[in-house]
Amino acid sequence: MSELMQYIKRASEVTDATLEKLLPAETSYPNSIHKLMRYSTFAGGKRIRPCLLMASHEACGGQFGDKNVLAASAALEMFHTFSLIHDDLPCMDDDDFRRGKPTAHKAFTEALAVLGGDALCIAAFEILASIGRVDIISEIAKALGTSGMLGGQVVDIESEGKQVSRETVEYIHHNKTAALICSSIRIGAMLADAPSEVLQKLTFYGHHVGLAFQVVDDILDEESTTETLGKDAGSDRERGKATYPAVCGIAESKRYARELTDRAWADIVFLGEKGRVLHDMAEYIVTRISLFFLCGLFAVVYKE
Amino acid sequence: MSELMQYIKRASEVTDATLEKLLPAETSYPNSIHKLMRYSTFAGGKRIRPCLLMASHEACGGQFGDKNVLAASAALEMFHTFSLIHDDLPCMDDDDFRRGKPTAHKAFTEALAVLGGDALCIAAFEILASIGRVDIISEIAKALGTSGMLGGQVVDIESEGKQVSRETVEYIHHNKTAALICSSIRIGAMLADAPSEVLQKLTFYGHHVGLAFQVVDDILDEESTTETLGKDAGSDRERGKATYPAVCGIAESKRYARELTDRAWADIVFLGEKGRVLHDMAEYIVTRISLFFLCGLFAVVYKE
Repeated sequence: MSELMQYIKRASEVTDATLEKLLPAETSYPNSIHKLMRYSTFAGGKRIRPCLLMASHEACGGQFGDKNVLAASAALEMFHTFSLIHDDLPCMDDDDFRRGKPTAHKAFTEALAVLGGDALCIAAFEILASIGRVDIISEIAKALGTSGMLGGQVVDIESEGKQVSRETVEYIHHNKTAALICSSIRIGAMLADAPSEVLQKLTFYGHHVGLAFQVVDDILDEESTTETLGKDAGSDRERGKATYPAVCGIAESKRYARELTDRAWADIVFLGEKGRVLHDMAEYIVTRISLFFLCGLFAVVYKE
Repeated sequence: MSELMQYIKRASEVTDATLEKLLPAETSYPNSIHKLMRYSTFAGGKRIRPCLLMASHEACGGQFGDKNVLAASAALEMFHTFSLIHDDLPCMDDDDFRRGKPTAHKAFTEALAVLGGDALCIAAFEILASIGRVDIISEIAKALGTSGMLGGQVVDIESEGKQVSRETVEYIHHNKTAALICSSIRIGAMLADAPSEVLQKLTFYGHHVGLAFQVVDDILDEESTTETLGKDAGSDRERGKATYPAVCGIAESKRYARELTDRAWADIVFLGEKGRVLHDMAEYIVTRISLFFLCGLFAVVYKE
């Protein structure tokens, strides 16, 4: 296993252990919502945001496994899960599957999915408050709000079936996806009390990596099979979603993903060897394209 | 106009002015979600929570119009609006009207109502973070989460059409409604740095007043007309909602509302004259029953 894969495994294990500890028990009343919160949080996410948070924290001189870093990582993953649950609702993207499992409103009810999403968001703020840093709460609220993730989701929904410009797609991706990813990286640095010039450079890195992540997601939706993707492949095109492949084609999207990764690398050159994990994470994100193809190929061969 | 009515008017005016300043402008992109946030926030709420927060703050020696109190009051009203928007959704209570106006998902779209509710919740946390007090963020997150408001909403939804005990109704009301009202009062006291024994007594007062508020709401739903109520009257019974009138009848509900008010009064005797507004607010909440009847009568006479 590569060094990066070991890091991701370790980061995702400690994040899961923290989530296990911090999420309300399934047996606590009212059980149904706590079951849903755990069902969706433990539905097989790759824990990319916690990984980036931890890597950024370490790159800025922090210690792996720091208590506040673990709490913030768990909170980040809960915010992310909250957004996915609401995104999948029938009135939004109407998705039946996510990571190969029925979405929250399918496995439970629609009402419970709305409330369970809300509960994850609120519980995540409670966890962040326990760290005692209001600057981190401000940071994440900005990234999640209408000048961040939610703004991106609104324009995403409203652009469905419309001819949109590359600028609009860039706006959607920048806000819907990159804002939270960038914020994870910033929070890691903030928890290590990084100086503002370091924070600034990591912000650029975060935007580039976050954007690359979504461009790659778009390409995967277009090129993968439902089996390897764990959700309906090609659904973006079917719904007339504003994606990079839709506005500038697959080849240009791949070139752009590569360009964004190169830019992300340039942003963190100043970190030298301390930036190794962040460097490799950027590479990992863009090579998910080929990784998914290998998995797909394997699945086909295995079945034959 | 009575002294209390003047207080409520003044508190609600400063809250509205603060909300006007803190909510994103309708002209800022993406406009639709900002329009919805303002539409629902300015849909004619009585600003009971800000009133109680301010009254509690003053009772504990704070100054009316304190900057942090205004910010917290606005945030409380945004949390409340967020909960109403999600509560009204088709998958939840499926209400078409609220305070005499179409509900958010009717005036806009269902997707936008989900996201607009989320956005109000997140923006309210951002406002609280600007005050710089993590203890207040912890406080409100507990009141809103699954051991508070959201827990009450889950049991409320799951009890529909079922025969439930008085204990279950008490649980629902205690959490769905009283938790946030109680928290408003506690936050007012916390912002005045009230000592813990004062906070404890105000917590009792908050629970009693909050519970009384919901018992009265149940009675109003049963006894008012749609015209005076601004939403569908009798809808609780139609939907088989777990309410006080449903489990113990109208007469016992009225007696209980009165008893809760008496208890709330007893909780704040120690405040003496400083507790005047809190005392009168408790009275106001329970006499909404007769006030509504007077309004209804007036509406009928006026029409004839």
